Amino acid sequence: MTNSVNLPTPPSLRTRVRRVAELASYEQATLHAIIDDAYLCHIAFGDEHGSHCIPTACWRIDGHLYIHGSNGSRMLRQLLKDGDACVTITHLDALVLARSAFNHTMNYRSAMIYGQFEKVDDMAQQHVAMEALMDKLAPGRQAHVRAGSAKEYAATTVLRIAPLECAVKQRKGGPLDDAGDMAHAVWTGELPFVHGRGPAVADLLCTSETPAYVKDWAREYA
Amino acid sequence: MTNSVNLPTPPSLRTRVRRVAELASYEQATLHAIIDDAYLCHIAFGDEHGSHCIPTACWRIDGHLYIHGSNGSRMLRQLLKDGDACVTITHLDALVLARSAFNHTMNYRSAMIYGQFEKVDDMAQQHVAMEALMDKLAPGRQAHVRAGSAKEYAATTVLRIAPLECAVKQRKGGPLDDAGDMAHAVWTGELPFVHGRGPAVADLLCTSETPAYVKDWAREYA
Repeated sequence: MTNSVNLPTPPSLRTRVRRVAELASYEQATLHAIIDDAYLCHIAFGDEHGSHCIPTACWRIDGHLYIHGSNGSRMLRQLLKDGDACVTITHLDALVLARSAFNHTMNYRSAMIYGQFEKVDDMAQQHVAMEALMDKLAPGRQAHVRAGSAKEYAATTVLRIAPLECAVKQRKGGPLDDAGDMAHAVWTGELPFVHGRGPAVADLLCTSETPAYVKDWAREYA
Repeated sequence: MTNSVNLPTPPSLRTRVRRVAELASYEQATLHAIIDDAYLCHIAFGDEHGSHCIPTACWRIDGHLYIHGSNGSRMLRQLLKDGDACVTITHLDALVLARSAFNHTMNYRSAMIYGQFEKVDDMAQQHVAMEALMDKLAPGRQAHVRAGSAKEYAATTVLRIAPLECAVKQRKGGPLDDAGDMAHAVWTGELPFVHGRGPAVADLLCTSETPAYVKDWAREYA
């Protein structure tokens, strides 16, 4: 027996991407939720060596998606030189098992943003951006860590991109089978993924008390 | 107070990528494990519209990474026309909280594969490839679904890429703080992610018994 498995059609290429102004407000809310649920994005860009797909941390302030890295990062330097990039975030939610091999698919939420990154040059804005990242990682932690020094900030590049062109795609729900396959007897349904969190692991050298955001970490999705 | 957060340095760009022949065997085993743990990869490629970053299902047979899609997929057609691509898989394992904002990082396992995709033209090989995908999604299911028809197979393109050039990167373990920060009193350690699985959701129209691979789905990572 041979089988074909029809997994999700790749999200639309650029020609099918829309300007953000054309997005319905629920789509914009979906876009923001997809970014907010993600710790990482993948960034595609090209240089003289070809195409690259690099994972990096991402976060959102209002309408912009932010990334950062060392000033020496070849990706950041290339994005500043020729900002044309595609930023993609994908959350995989379930495998979807259909009656025919061909109609198997996956449930997912994805966002693709096309555009140009711009550098956050203003020092105050750079600080606000990095604080927003810390707030995303560990709300409340910012006041307790050893803050970034001027030298550390000077060594860090922060970039942001406005989702002026984007594609938000998602699939939810059970399988969609061909009418002719409905009598085929096989289990059908969804096998969900859980984006969970395990118990925090304290560093061996840690002598400080466990703060609420660490205690709550595993509980939140348990 | 302001903070800088030093998340993972992006995996190396092409100049630092090595030929697979240079990988130590434990690195090759790591590469295979990273692919096998993934249901999705992100593929970067360029066309006349710029750079694209597309998520798609991936799986492995021996040394090759496979993808598939509709014959009409613009990504697949572009990859066949100008196969230069970068395929990246990233598993995010933990946030790593350090004493200084700057030394915060993430634990992850990532693989980047550079190269050219090739089409799996041989019909028998195409069948083997699609069966391997089904075996990955739901071991044992293949014998029970309505198998792919000749028409469905004819509408499906299967591509594969050999990781002749790749970068395998991972970070594990707790924070690495500057010596001068060790007296700073703040909780340090890891906040792990769990790549979990929730209880299967049977389709409302499903009348078949629940097979072992569905019963075992949630248990495996519970």
